[in-house]
Amino acid sequence: MDLAAGVLGGDRLQLARVISYIEDDEPAGAEALAALYAHAGHAYRVGVTGPPGTGKSTLVNRLALHLRAQGWGEGDSLEGERPRVAIVAVDPSSPFTGGAILGDRIRMRDLSGDPGIFIRSMATRGQLGGLARTTADVVTALDAAGFGVVLIETVGAGQAEVDIAKTAQTTIVVDAPGLGDDVQANKAGILEIADIVVVNKTDLPGAENTLRALRLSLEMNAPRAAKDVGKDELPPEPVWSVPVLGTVATKGEGVPALAQALAQHRAFLQSSAALQEQERAQIRDRLERLLAERLLARFMSQGNELRIEEQLDRVLAREITPYQAAQALLQAEEHLSQKR
Amino acid sequence: MDLAAGVLGGDRLQLARVISYIEDDEPAGAEALAALYAHAGHAYRVGVTGPPGTGKSTLVNRLALHLRAQGWGEGDSLEGERPRVAIVAVDPSSPFTGGAILGDRIRMRDLSGDPGIFIRSMATRGQLGGLARTTADVVTALDAAGFGVVLIETVGAGQAEVDIAKTAQTTIVVDAPGLGDDVQANKAGILEIADIVVVNKTDLPGAENTLRALRLSLEMNAPRAAKDVGKDELPPEPVWSVPVLGTVATKGEGVPALAQALAQHRAFLQSSAALQEQERAQIRDRLERLLAERLLARFMSQGNELRIEEQLDRVLAREITPYQAAQALLQAEEHLSQKR
Repeated sequence: MDLAAGVLGGDRLQLARVISYIEDDEPAGAEALAALYAHAGHAYRVGVTGPPGTGKSTLVNRLALHLRAQGWGEGDSLEGERPRVAIVAVDPSSPFTGGAILGDRIRMRDLSGDPGIFIRSMATRGQLGGLARTTADVVTALDAAGFGVVLIETVGAGQAEVDIAKTAQTTIVVDAPGLGDDVQANKAGILEIADIVVVNKTDLPGAENTLRALRLSLEMNAPRAAKDVGKDELPPEPVWSVPVLGTVATKGEGVPALAQALAQHRAFLQSSAALQEQERAQIRDRLERLLAERLLARFMSQGNELRIEEQLDRVLAREITPYQAAQALLQAEEHLSQKR
Repeated sequence: MDLAAGVLGGDRLQLARVISYIEDDEPAGAEALAALYAHAGHAYRVGVTGPPGTGKSTLVNRLALHLRAQGWGEGDSLEGERPRVAIVAVDPSSPFTGGAILGDRIRMRDLSGDPGIFIRSMATRGQLGGLARTTADVVTALDAAGFGVVLIETVGAGQAEVDIAKTAQTTIVVDAPGLGDDVQANKAGILEIADIVVVNKTDLPGAENTLRALRLSLEMNAPRAAKDVGKDELPPEPVWSVPVLGTVATKGEGVPALAQALAQHRAFLQSSAALQEQERAQIRDRLERLLAERLLARFMSQGNELRIEEQLDRVLAREITPYQAAQALLQAEEHLSQKR
């Protein structure tokens, strides 16, 4: 409880400690989270993802500095607000090492000196769905600590990154001109999670082509386009049209427009039922993952270890498939629990 | 059973059909798999992963063509063998669309005409751990169909890619000169899963630096180095020293050396206990994931949907944390099952 009180009181050292406990899966982390959870729910969570080499970290740094200095921008309800900003940089591609330490130091230098900015790097620990869960908990702690904006940055463009981006309310997908064919092929999938698309490094050759291709790609897919308006009596649902913005993060170009697009998307979410639906779906997803983990742990602790080894032997001998093994284990357990 | 018989008899159309059933999670897929499983276990499974833009697809195509034309290389037990080769190209970054179709067509053109090569693209369907499981099942079908080598290529460098690579016996990590700083920072993690490292595009500037940096990085980490030899009476365990090879896949340069390195790693695995241990660990991992999924499905079907909604409401109101909700749901179920 002392730790949680420290976090709520704005103590950065206590906050860093709670985050470490959460990462290390220590009981003190769970305890602090339980106390902090009621105080969270106010931060605006923004996911930033995209392929490597697009300059995401620089963009995130610049966005944080801009929000601190100038706030959201003109002409909307958030005008004048200068939120405290936390950055969580997640590296799912370092499943075994700590990762991203050098990058972290460089970032600290850029952003240090402002107590309204907090930055933390994380790497996966290899458990089933572990990183997405740990990230969500760390975001909760930052949220409770009073950061108005939490920027969740993931390096890469794989499933883990998508999972993490999905814990955000607004997802920015970052691209850059001149990346390889692989990256081009990847775009279709990752664009579908984008609320805002940024082409960074627009001072490089080919930027216009990249911007055009992305706009075209979004138009073609446009899953939220209200094509069927007028077909029935219901009023058309409000539609968010995904903007494609150009930036040069190293020079700060385009960053104010990005901040404004974020404020607009947030206002859009608040004006529709989307925010509540999104929140419920995200928490349902988390709860189901937690349940799956705990059900497995309980199953393992109920004397099934030996039975699992027996089934493993049979699978290795190719007498049965892994599916049949799982089936057999579950049936044996049901049989036993009926006897009890 | 007809389907499985067709696959075992070498019918490519039936094979393609079984793979589609597996991907779509249809009962016919599970049925065919159960019949095929006993016939699998002979293929050499090779994972190929690494960041986008490194030319993995081209390398995999070239490797497949080389193995078909020249076999493994000189001087080892596999000399003269020209295995049939299947390629499974997995794109975990396309969680919503089919993905990679264009790339697939280009590849078909390069590789078509050889009935000893089979190629299939896959995209994730978004379930918990779904892609890794589906990939493993598809590999089993290809294995049973008699392909001597299955090349499992993943686009990207995230957790999902690592999971998929882990279903292989040998993992190749592909890099290229001149990728951004992001990619450099990612290397430490992904190198730890490498059995063979390839620097592709060594005709680009900076190739020597990339090769040197990777060799240094591997030496520094060398988790399998036999530093402590002589400390006790046990004979030292055989050590695999991860080679760093240069290739220019577009021209086929370095591909024969890669094939030979694969044959050597396979021989190394077979000479030690590593292969059995790896196989058991992989199947244990799969079995645990399956159990977690099925335990959750069973839990859901036992009338817990309503209870879950109640707990969700409480979490959304921030009365309790998701952990407390999971705990409450499990305790309620235990209480009920004791009453029964």
